[in-house]
Amino acid sequence: MEKIDLLASLPLFEGLSRAQLESLSRAAFESRYAAGELIFSAEAPTRGLFVVRDGHVKIFRSTLEGREQTIYLIGPGQPFCLAGALGHDPAPASAMALSRCTVLSFPSALLESLGREEPALLVNMILSLSARLKQAMAMIENLALKELPERLAAFVLVEAGAGQLAVLSVPHVEIAKVLGTTPETLSRTIKRLAAEGLLAQEGRNLRILDRPGLTRLAGLDC
Amino acid sequence: MEKIDLLASLPLFEGLSRAQLESLSRAAFESRYAAGELIFSAEAPTRGLFVVRDGHVKIFRSTLEGREQTIYLIGPGQPFCLAGALGHDPAPASAMALSRCTVLSFPSALLESLGREEPALLVNMILSLSARLKQAMAMIENLALKELPERLAAFVLVEAGAGQLAVLSVPHVEIAKVLGTTPETLSRTIKRLAAEGLLAQEGRNLRILDRPGLTRLAGLDC
Repeated sequence: MEKIDLLASLPLFEGLSRAQLESLSRAAFESRYAAGELIFSAEAPTRGLFVVRDGHVKIFRSTLEGREQTIYLIGPGQPFCLAGALGHDPAPASAMALSRCTVLSFPSALLESLGREEPALLVNMILSLSARLKQAMAMIENLALKELPERLAAFVLVEAGAGQLAVLSVPHVEIAKVLGTTPETLSRTIKRLAAEGLLAQEGRNLRILDRPGLTRLAGLDC
Repeated sequence: MEKIDLLASLPLFEGLSRAQLESLSRAAFESRYAAGELIFSAEAPTRGLFVVRDGHVKIFRSTLEGREQTIYLIGPGQPFCLAGALGHDPAPASAMALSRCTVLSFPSALLESLGREEPALLVNMILSLSARLKQAMAMIENLALKELPERLAAFVLVEAGAGQLAVLSVPHVEIAKVLGTTPETLSRTIKRLAAEGLLAQEGRNLRILDRPGLTRLAGLDC
């Protein structure tokens, strides 16, 4: 897909004119990363907004001793570093390529001037930031108030959406970092939910066998 | 303070003309709440943006079984429900008055039309949302990767800012809900840090006695 057609297809840029999309497209800086490569680290100065063109990226925080918690998994067409897009503070978290990936970045100054010309861009950014904040609040609830089987059940339901299959685009070792556990404990918990007839493992993916049971376990309303 | 002067003093409304502040002021709905009263609950339809005029409010998530995690404590002059200000989704968390308080609310439609007329309002909203998202990410790191003494040390350093005294505007039972623990465990942990000479309890407040020690414990760079 041409860069400008990709930009035109993103909800973030909905409502922009062709001329505005063209200036975004010209200003977008395209970078390629190898799997495991750091895109930016928390505390580094931010450079604007990023969009994954292809591949997957994780957004994470780590302690001085190297323990890590993944906050978001970002796939093709999704923006990241929204919290650093217009401010002058350092990035609040680090970003790493989970696979070979291509990332577009848009400088803050351009976003701000385009946004003042076409406020729809700013409204879209507010809606994207709101969605990210809601995901972060759900993760806070998960980490603070739920045990791992409940967290796994909630995760599978979100990933599967209305379907029966949670297609996991990244390895289980990365899913474990999202769920705040180790790969071994995650694997044991998947086996336990499979033994209870709630889900089945299909390669890397997880198939929902008993949606009401999984929903009850997740502590969600049916 | 007159309502319009209060609005003019808020960073959220910086850059708005007097006429724009006046239409905000006319549209602002003022509500009073008693301590412990629910302002809105998660999953209720949102009505726009809220600002605390006086008193304190907590933003929290709770499970079906009634366990709670406080995400933010909101004081005078601070906005809340930013994630629901422009969207049409239900509120991502609940809000409760921690003391007698007065709250102003601004309807979504007015914020959006004013924002399209004066994009500075939308830019301010993006910066406020970014700040909230950063706080949420810090809380995720705290819950996932830090033990309670580290979390308490980080909390005291943030509340004290550049000063030596963390002035706690809400009771310890509410601080415990922010730190994801019980009041008893929080009390034991405060005593432990006091015995180690890191801080001292002064009524409800906590005084920093050893900032480098507390910073090391919090796992932050000095």
